[in-house]
Amino acid sequence: MQAIKVGIIGGTGYTGVELLRILSQHPQVEVVAISSRSEAGRHITDFFPSLRGLYDLEFSDPKEIKWQTCDVVFFATPNGVAMHEARQLFDNGIKIIDLSADFRLKDEAEWSHWYGMDHACPELIEQAVYGLPELHREAISRAKIVANPGCYPTPAQLGLFPLLKQNLIETHHIIIDAKSGVSGAGRKSDVNFSLCEVNESFKAYAAGGHRHLPEIRQGLNAISEEDVNLTFVPHLVPMIRGMHNTMYAPLNSNGLLMSEQQLHDVFSQQYENEDFVDVLPLGVHPETRSVKAANTCRISLFRPQAGHTIVVLAVIDNLVKGAAGQAVQNMNIMFGVDEKVGIASAPVCP
Amino acid sequence: MQAIKVGIIGGTGYTGVELLRILSQHPQVEVVAISSRSEAGRHITDFFPSLRGLYDLEFSDPKEIKWQTCDVVFFATPNGVAMHEARQLFDNGIKIIDLSADFRLKDEAEWSHWYGMDHACPELIEQAVYGLPELHREAISRAKIVANPGCYPTPAQLGLFPLLKQNLIETHHIIIDAKSGVSGAGRKSDVNFSLCEVNESFKAYAAGGHRHLPEIRQGLNAISEEDVNLTFVPHLVPMIRGMHNTMYAPLNSNGLLMSEQQLHDVFSQQYENEDFVDVLPLGVHPETRSVKAANTCRISLFRPQAGHTIVVLAVIDNLVKGAAGQAVQNMNIMFGVDEKVGIASAPVCP
Amino acid sequence: MQAIKVGIIGGTGYTGVELLRILSQHPQVEVVAISSRSEAGRHITDFFPSLRGLYDLEFSDPKEIKWQTCDVVFFATPNGVAMHEARQLFDNGIKIIDLSADFRLKDEAEWSHWYGMDHACPELIEQAVYGLPELHREAISRAKIVANPGCYPTPAQLGLFPLLKQNLIETHHIIIDAKSGVSGAGRKSDVNFSLCEVNESFKAYAAGGHRHLPEIRQGLNAISEEDVNLTFVPHLVPMIRGMHNTMYAPLNSNGLLMSEQQLHDVFSQQYENEDFVDVLPLGVHPETRSVKAANTCRISLFRPQAGHTIVVLAVIDNLVKGAAGQAVQNMNIMFGVDEKVGIASAPVCP
Amino acid sequence: MQAIKVGIIGGTGYTGVELLRILSQHPQVEVVAISSRSEAGRHITDFFPSLRGLYDLEFSDPKEIKWQTCDVVFFATPNGVAMHEARQLFDNGIKIIDLSADFRLKDEAEWSHWYGMDHACPELIEQAVYGLPELHREAISRAKIVANPGCYPTPAQLGLFPLLKQNLIETHHIIIDAKSGVSGAGRKSDVNFSLCEVNESFKAYAAGGHRHLPEIRQGLNAISEEDVNLTFVPHLVPMIRGMHNTMYAPLNSNGLLMSEQQLHDVFSQQYENEDFVDVLPLGVHPETRSVKAANTCRISLFRPQAGHTIVVLAVIDNLVKGAAGQAVQNMNIMFGVDEKVGIASAPVCP
Repeated sequence: MQAIKVGIIGGTGYTGVELLRILSQHPQVEVVAISSRSEAGRHITDFFPSLRGLYDLEFSDPKEIKWQTCDVVFFATPNGVAMHEARQLFDNGIKIIDLSADFRLKDEAEWSHWYGMDHACPELIEQAVYGLPELHREAISRAKIVANPGCYPTPAQLGLFPLLKQNLIETHHIIIDAKSGVSGAGRKSDVNFSLCEVNESFKAYAAGGHRHLPEIRQGLNAISEEDVNLTFVPHLVPMIRGMHNTMYAPLNSNGLLMSEQQLHDVFSQQYENEDFVDVLPLGVHPETRSVKAANTCRISLFRPQAGHTIVVLAVIDNLVKGAAGQAVQNMNIMFGVDEKVGIASAPVCP
Repeated sequence: MQAIKVGIIGGTGYTGVELLRILSQHPQVEVVAISSRSEAGRHITDFFPSLRGLYDLEFSDPKEIKWQTCDVVFFATPNGVAMHEARQLFDNGIKIIDLSADFRLKDEAEWSHWYGMDHACPELIEQAVYGLPELHREAISRAKIVANPGCYPTPAQLGLFPLLKQNLIETHHIIIDAKSGVSGAGRKSDVNFSLCEVNESFKAYAAGGHRHLPEIRQGLNAISEEDVNLTFVPHLVPMIRGMHNTMYAPLNSNGLLMSEQQLHDVFSQQYENEDFVDVLPLGVHPETRSVKAANTCRISLFRPQAGHTIVVLAVIDNLVKGAAGQAVQNMNIMFGVDEKVGIASAPVCP
Repeated sequence: MQAIKVGIIGGTGYTGVELLRILSQHPQVEVVAISSRSEAGRHITDFFPSLRGLYDLEFSDPKEIKWQTCDVVFFATPNGVAMHEARQLFDNGIKIIDLSADFRLKDEAEWSHWYGMDHACPELIEQAVYGLPELHREAISRAKIVANPGCYPTPAQLGLFPLLKQNLIETHHIIIDAKSGVSGAGRKSDVNFSLCEVNESFKAYAAGGHRHLPEIRQGLNAISEEDVNLTFVPHLVPMIRGMHNTMYAPLNSNGLLMSEQQLHDVFSQQYENEDFVDVLPLGVHPETRSVKAANTCRISLFRPQAGHTIVVLAVIDNLVKGAAGQAVQNMNIMFGVDEKVGIASAPVCP
Repeated sequence: MQAIKVGIIGGTGYTGVELLRILSQHPQVEVVAISSRSEAGRHITDFFPSLRGLYDLEFSDPKEIKWQTCDVVFFATPNGVAMHEARQLFDNGIKIIDLSADFRLKDEAEWSHWYGMDHACPELIEQAVYGLPELHREAISRAKIVANPGCYPTPAQLGLFPLLKQNLIETHHIIIDAKSGVSGAGRKSDVNFSLCEVNESFKAYAAGGHRHLPEIRQGLNAISEEDVNLTFVPHLVPMIRGMHNTMYAPLNSNGLLMSEQQLHDVFSQQYENEDFVDVLPLGVHPETRSVKAANTCRISLFRPQAGHTIVVLAVIDNLVKGAAGQAVQNMNIMFGVDEKVGIASAPVCP
C-alpha cells in the first residue's frame, strides 16, 4: 500500500509533537510537510530533541508548502486558524482533520458566542463530521472534514453514552467534574502554567463556563431523548498528561431498577468490540497513568450505597485519545486502514 | 501566663510532625512528652531533621510517660487507639484532642460499621465535642474531649453550612467531589503511595463509600431541616499537601431567587468575623497552594449560566486546617487563648 | 522599639512575595511601600491571594513612592535596576539591601562581562558589603548597602569556607555540582519553565558558564591562600523550592591527615554558634525539604572510601537563605535586631 | 521466523512491567511464562492494569513453570536470586539475561563485599558477558549469560568511554555526580520512597559508597591504561523515570590540546554508527525527558572556560536503557535479531 501523505499545520504545540511521535510509529504514513510561521527553516528535531533520528524534516512557512501533495492535513493550530484555511484544502480534495475547535459546534451562533469571533467558514460546518469514532465511525469513514473532539468531551461522551442510549438517567442534573493535566493548556509562555505556579497545587478554573460545555451538551443532546442539563467544572492537576472525568447523574426509574452489576453490563456490552474503550472490572478505579501515552479510555462506574446516583469515572491521556491519538484513529478510519495501526502501543507506566 | 503543658500520643506520622511544627511557634505551649512505641528512646530530630534546633525531646514508650503532668493530650494515632486510652486521661482531668476518628460519630453502631471494630469507649462519645470551631465554638470552649474533624469533612461543612443554614438548596442530590494531596493517607510504608505509583497520575478511590461520608452527613444533617442525601467521591492528587472540595447542589425555590452576588453575600456575612475562613471575591477560584502550611479555608462559589445548580469550591491544607492546625485552634479555644496564636503565619507560596 | 519602615522595589516576583511572607511575621517591621510598574494600583492580595488578610497595601508606581519614609529599601528587581536607583536612596541615608546581582562583584569589568551591560553606578560598588552573614557579619552591621548573595553562592561558600579557612583542600580542581528548584529562575512567562517542560525531567544548564561562577570564585578567593580553580555546573530539579550543592575537592596534605570525623569536627566548630547553619551528624545526608520555607543551611560531609576527595553537601531553600530570608537576616544585623527575629519559624515538612 | 520464547522470573517490579511493556511491542517475541511467588495465580493485568488487552498471562509460582520451553529467561529479581537459579537454566541451554547485579562483577570477593553475601554460583561469573552493547557487542552475540548493566553504570561508561579510549583525561580524579528518578529504587513498600517523603525535595544518598561504584570502576579500568580513581555520588530526583550523570575529569596533556569542538568530534565519531547513543550538538544540554520511555542515551560535553576540566552530561531512561530496554537490546543481539526491533519507538515527550 502506498503511504498516506500527511501534512501538519501548526506543529510546534503539544498536539503537534504528539502527532509527530505517533505518526513516527505508523508504518503507512509519510509526513511530507509541517508548517510553523515562527520556526520556519528550523529542523523539527532542533525544536523537539526527543524526535532526533526519527524525522528529517524542517518547519516551513505555511505559504511555501505545496499542500496539494498531501492526502490529509492535520490542523494542530489554535482555535480560529483552521476555519480560514480549510476551504482551499477542501476544494482541492485534501482531507482535513482539525484538532482545534473550529468545526466542532453545529450551531454557528453558539460557536461565535463561546469562541468570541465570527466563524470564517460556516458553509463547511455541516460537512464536518464530529470525530468520536465510537459514536460516529460510519460518518467518519466517509468524511472529508473531521472535527476532532475536545479533550474533556471525549471521556464525557464515552462515559455517559451508554446511560443515555439506554435511557437510564435523568438528564436535568448531570454533573461533570473534570480534571486535566497541564498539557491540556497547550505549549505557551504563560506564567500561569509555570511549574512554580501549578505544581503542588490544585484548583478549578472556568467554573462559570468553559468552551467544552456546549460541545459536551451538543453531543449528549444528540443521544438523549430529553434535553440535557449539565454542570461542568474543569480542574487543573499538577501533572503533565492525563484526564479524569468524574460524572454524576440521578438514575431514572429505569436505572433505579438495575443493580450496579447490571449497570456495569450495559457498559461492557456497549464497548465490547471497541479497541480503545476499556470497561474496568466492577470495583476498580481507573488511574490516568494506566493510559499514559496510549489511545485508550478506561471507564468504571459505581452506584454508591445502592443509592439514586450513578458515578462514572473515565480516564484518557488528553494528548492521545483526547487529541493526537484520536486524530490518527480518525485518519485510519477515513483511509480504510486498520483502526489500531500506529496507536496500539502499550501505555507507559510507571 | 503559665505554659500549657502538651503531650502527644503517636508522634511519628504527618499529623504528629505537623503538630510539632505548629506548636514550636506557639509561645504559650510547652511540649512535655511525645510517645511512640516503635521509636522510643530516639530523639525526635533524628526522626524529623526539619525540627533540629527547635526541640530537645525524645520519643518515649507510652507506658513510661507520666501523662498527669500534661494539661492536654493530642492523639495523633491511627483510628482505634484513642478510644482505649481516653478514659484514663479523662478521669484524671486531662483535656483530650483526638485527631483520629474515634469520637467523631455520635452513632456508635454507624462508627462500628464504617471503622470495622467495636467502640471501646462508647460512654465518652457523648462527652466529645465535634471540633469544627466555626460551627461549634461555644461547645468546644467547654469541652473536655474534642473530636477533631476529618480532613474532607472540614471544607465540606464549611462550604455547605451557609447554604443549609439559610435553606437555599435542595438536600436530596448533593455532590461532593473531593481531591486530596497524598499526605492525607498518612506516613506509611505502602507501595500504593510511593512516588512512582501516584505521581503524574490522578484517580478516584473509595467511590463506593468512604469513612468520611457518615461524618459529613452527620454534620450536614445537624444543620439541615431535611435529611441530606449525599454522594461523596474522594480523589488522590499527585501533590503532598492540599485539599479541594468541589460541591454541587440544586438550588431550591429560595436559592433560585438569589443572584450569584446575593449567594456570595450569604457566605461573606456568615464568615465575616472568622479568622480562618476566607470567602474569595466573586469569580476567583481558590488554589490549594494559597493555604499551604496555613490554617485557612478559602471558599468560592459559582452559579454557572445562572442555572439551578450552585457550585461551591473550598480549599484547605489537609495537614493544618484539616488536622493539626485545627487541633491547635481547638486547644486555644479550650484554654481561653486567642484563637490565632501559633497558627497565624502566612501560607508558603509558591 | 519603633518599627523599621520597609520599602520594596519590584514586588511581583518570587523573592518579592517571599519577602512579604517573611516580613508579615516580623514583629518589628512595617512594610510601607511596594512598587511595581505593571501592577500599580492593584492590591497586593489580588496578585498574591496567599497574603489575604495579612497586608493592606497596594502596588505603587515607583515614581510616586516617597522612599524617604523608608528606613531600608529592598530591591527584588531583575539585574540592572538597582544600580540605577541606589544612588538616590544612598544619598538620602536610606539603607539598601539588593537581592539582585548589581553590587555583588567587586570587579566592575567582570560584572559587565557576565551581565552584559555597563555598570551604572560603579562608585557604590566598593560601599556595598557582600551579605553573607556567617562570613561578613561585622561589615554587614555597618553597611549602608548590602549585596545579598546569589542562591548558588550561598551554600557554595558556606560549604567550602571551613576547608579553605583551615587550608585542607587543594584549590585547583574544585567541582560544584549544583541543583536548584525552578523558582530560582524567577516568576516569568517563559515556556521553558512551564510545568510540562520541566516536570518529570532533569537537566544541566549553563554548563559552559553561569553568572554565579565569578561570584563564587570571588568569595572563595577571599578565603583561600591560593587561587581557586572552579568548575560549576547548575542543574534544574523538577520542584519549586530547594537547592542542593554537591562539592568535591581533593584533600591537600593537611586534609589527608584528617579522618572523616576530624573533618566533621572542623565544620561543627566553625558553625557551632551560627543559628542558620546546621552541620548534620556524620553519615546523614541533607534533604532540601528539611529546610523548606526556612532560613537554614544544612551541611554534611563525606570522605568516601577514606580517599583523597572530600564531598560536601549543602542545602538551602533558594527563596529563603538563598534570597529573601538572608535579606531579612541582613536587615536584622544592620538594624541591631536579634538576628533570628522573623526568620526563626520551622521548616514546612512534608 | 519463529518467535523467541521468553520467560521472566520476578515480574512484579518496575523492570518486570517495563519488560512486559517493551516485549508487547516486539513482533518476534512470545512471553510464555512469568513468575511471582507472591502473586501466583493472578492475571498480570490485574496487577498492571496498563497492560490490559495486551497479554493473556498469569503469574505462576516459579516452581511450577517449565522453563525448558523458554529460549531465554530474564531475571527481574532482587540481587541474590539469579545466582541460585542460573545454573539449572544454563545447563539446559537456556539463555539468561540477568537484570540484577549477580553476575556484573568479575571479582567474587568484591561482589561479596558490596552485596553482603557469598556468591552462590561463582563458576558462572566468568561465563557472564557484561551487557553493554556499545562496548561489548561481539561478546554479547555469543553469550549464554548476559549481566545486564546497572542503571548508573550505563551512562557512566558510555560517557567516559571515548575519553579513556583516546587517552584524553587524567584518571586520578574522576567525579561522577549522578541523579536518578525514584523508579531506580524499585517497586516496594518503603515509606522512604513515598511521594510525601521524596517529592519537592532533592538529596544525595550513599555518598559514602554505592554498589554501582565497583561496577563503574571495573568497566572504566577495562578501558583505561591507568587505574581509575573515581568518586561517585548518586542523588534522588523527585520524578519517576530518568537518569542524568554529570561527569568531570581533568584533561591530560593530550586532552588539553583539543578544542571543545575536537573533543566533540571524538564522541561523534565513536558513536556515529550506534542507534542508541546520540551525541547532541555542541552547546546543547540533554534533558532526561528527551529519552523518556526510549532506549536512547544522549550525551553532551563541555569544556567550560576552555579550562582543564571536561564535563560530560549523559541521560537515559533508567528503566529502559538502564534496565529493560538494554536487556531487550541484548536479547536481540544474542538471537541475531535486528538490534532495534521492539525498542525503536519514540520517546514520550512531554
